[in-house]
Amino acid sequence: MKLPDFKVEQWMNDHEMDAVYNLTDTCVKALSLQELLSLETIDESSLILDYGQITGSKHVKEAILSFYQSGTIDQVTTCHGCLEANHLVMSTLLEPKDHVITCVPGYQQFVDLPRSMGCRVSTVTLDEAHGWSCDVNRVKDQIGSATKMIILNNPNNPTGTHFSDAFLYELARFCKDKNIYILCDEVYRSSERETSISDIYEYGISTGSLSKVLALAGLRFGWIKGNEEVIHAVNVRRDYTMISTGPLVEQLAFIAMKHKDEWLERSTSIIQKNKAIIRSWLKTEKRFHVQLPDTGTVSFLKYDFNMPSEQLAETLLKETGVFFVPGSCFNCEYHLRLGLGQDPEQMEKGLKLMSRWIDLRLHS
Amino acid sequence: MKLPDFKVEQWMNDHEMDAVYNLTDTCVKALSLQELLSLETIDESSLILDYGQITGSKHVKEAILSFYQSGTIDQVTTCHGCLEANHLVMSTLLEPKDHVITCVPGYQQFVDLPRSMGCRVSTVTLDEAHGWSCDVNRVKDQIGSATKMIILNNPNNPTGTHFSDAFLYELARFCKDKNIYILCDEVYRSSERETSISDIYEYGISTGSLSKVLALAGLRFGWIKGNEEVIHAVNVRRDYTMISTGPLVEQLAFIAMKHKDEWLERSTSIIQKNKAIIRSWLKTEKRFHVQLPDTGTVSFLKYDFNMPSEQLAETLLKETGVFFVPGSCFNCEYHLRLGLGQDPEQMEKGLKLMSRWIDLRLHS
Repeated sequence: MKLPDFKVEQWMNDHEMDAVYNLTDTCVKALSLQELLSLETIDESSLILDYGQITGSKHVKEAILSFYQSGTIDQVTTCHGCLEANHLVMSTLLEPKDHVITCVPGYQQFVDLPRSMGCRVSTVTLDEAHGWSCDVNRVKDQIGSATKMIILNNPNNPTGTHFSDAFLYELARFCKDKNIYILCDEVYRSSERETSISDIYEYGISTGSLSKVLALAGLRFGWIKGNEEVIHAVNVRRDYTMISTGPLVEQLAFIAMKHKDEWLERSTSIIQKNKAIIRSWLKTEKRFHVQLPDTGTVSFLKYDFNMPSEQLAETLLKETGVFFVPGSCFNCEYHLRLGLGQDPEQMEKGLKLMSRWIDLRLHS
Repeated sequence: MKLPDFKVEQWMNDHEMDAVYNLTDTCVKALSLQELLSLETIDESSLILDYGQITGSKHVKEAILSFYQSGTIDQVTTCHGCLEANHLVMSTLLEPKDHVITCVPGYQQFVDLPRSMGCRVSTVTLDEAHGWSCDVNRVKDQIGSATKMIILNNPNNPTGTHFSDAFLYELARFCKDKNIYILCDEVYRSSERETSISDIYEYGISTGSLSKVLALAGLRFGWIKGNEEVIHAVNVRRDYTMISTGPLVEQLAFIAMKHKDEWLERSTSIIQKNKAIIRSWLKTEKRFHVQLPDTGTVSFLKYDFNMPSEQLAETLLKETGVFFVPGSCFNCEYHLRLGLGQDPEQMEKGLKLMSRWIDLRLHS
């Protein structure tokens, strides 16, 4: 089933290794294995590298549930990261000709994966003039008799949009009678206090992982939470696509989740520092504008000079080592994706370098 | 996209934990993390848990190529196990209405996954009377203008069939002009001396993993080897489904592959012991028959008394702890899948227990 290049992933794959100042990554600065194991060790002799428990052990599922307000272990299954979680949900529940709705600028998976399966996909453009917000009526207006699923990313990559409780409750209320699934990729969600779609809606499906605020993308550990029927159907498909995450990754994920408050404290501190640096930079840098989000690790930097974003990102990287994903990867020109979780020192230096580079480029 | 239960995986998931004598697992007795790390340690402080190199590092790809006679690192990509490798290949290359051919009894993924994508699937039944062999003309006879892919499992689960060089070369020769892919799941292949489809055919795609003869299913590490065009297309899809295996799994996989000769020696010894035990058991146990394969870890035990295989497997497990996957999971009655890689002591005890149990059951 044909798919176009996944622009943002392709950009990261092609350029990330050249970055000196990575200002675009959406993960918090990754932990080392040593840092993870500093909190708790694993017994290497009793860790047998067989398939392990296929859909995840009871205790790992309970640890996942600690991110939510409700749910039982039969409402959870594990997988390799949130991207795979989304893929599993879509390929389990969608059929050719189903109608899907999602928001743009957004994560390309939500548009092109359903399309490759023969679904019709409608998009709702987020309102940049109002802080990249979304009027729930604009989503409701797209719903028709063939609508099977609405896909949200909350907070949203790349805009940082945090869909409000009012938005989520109203959308859930409207979708309920129509049996429409709301798949919500909550990979940028930071705390169990932020509303999860799976806690408030029977046909709400939440996906998550340890990759972003928990800074452990390298474990490739994610999960799906939904109603029992959905999770059962996903588990049937899992047997054809992945079998299990394996016991090693599961044990390490368990340790990470058990100590999540420590890691979240570290992440929050990094994110706050970066936000302060960005705010301070913007006081003197008037060519850029950004809506910094209350939660999550991602924002979308707008600039008001005339250079296509791909050219800007490419030349900037080549000449300064400052690394951004261009807005063109999200079909949204004159923007750069600004990540909030990497090294604050690099953020400070990188932003200054970029300003100086633009001074020279545009005014020389 | 709807899928039926994956019978053998479901059976394993539902019953494996109750097994005392596991005579059906197709993996060699799994290694512990300690055993794996006894050969080489990893530097936990320099192992940063970010996404790592997206399609796998150069050195891990070179290690994968050591299983083959030919190929460059651009002809290899990594993933989480061989099942995912197969899934990636099928979902990348197949479109609705394509025609696919595979052999039965075989691995259900090869039939039901393409069907769920809207493909037409033809099956060729392996010839039990001739040691579960396959006449290449019977496959060729199925090929038509819509045929896009032939899927083999070499050696084959559950029959142990090892497709001969003559078979593979003739099929490749016949398919070449028609641009038909041959996807060959080589997860049970033991050595680079056994012919791999990707070494002999331009449109041949090999998938493999560390799960079976290398006894490391828990790492969930697998790969795909094919021509550069196929691997590029798979890598595009990978961005929508998995991103990367992560650096931890990759490093451990690298250690395993670097020392594969040591592990293969251990595995060969276990498999030989089990085969000797089975041969000895069959000398006095006339109700069972099996074609023990020259290579691989799987065989298909036939019995000649009148009890449906599911009833046999279920009651046997419940009353004795002896665990088999019934032939019904492969739509092939009066058979049990017999794995060759688990603990020989358990094999010996388990087979004796089964004989005694049947004596009591059938003749009381």
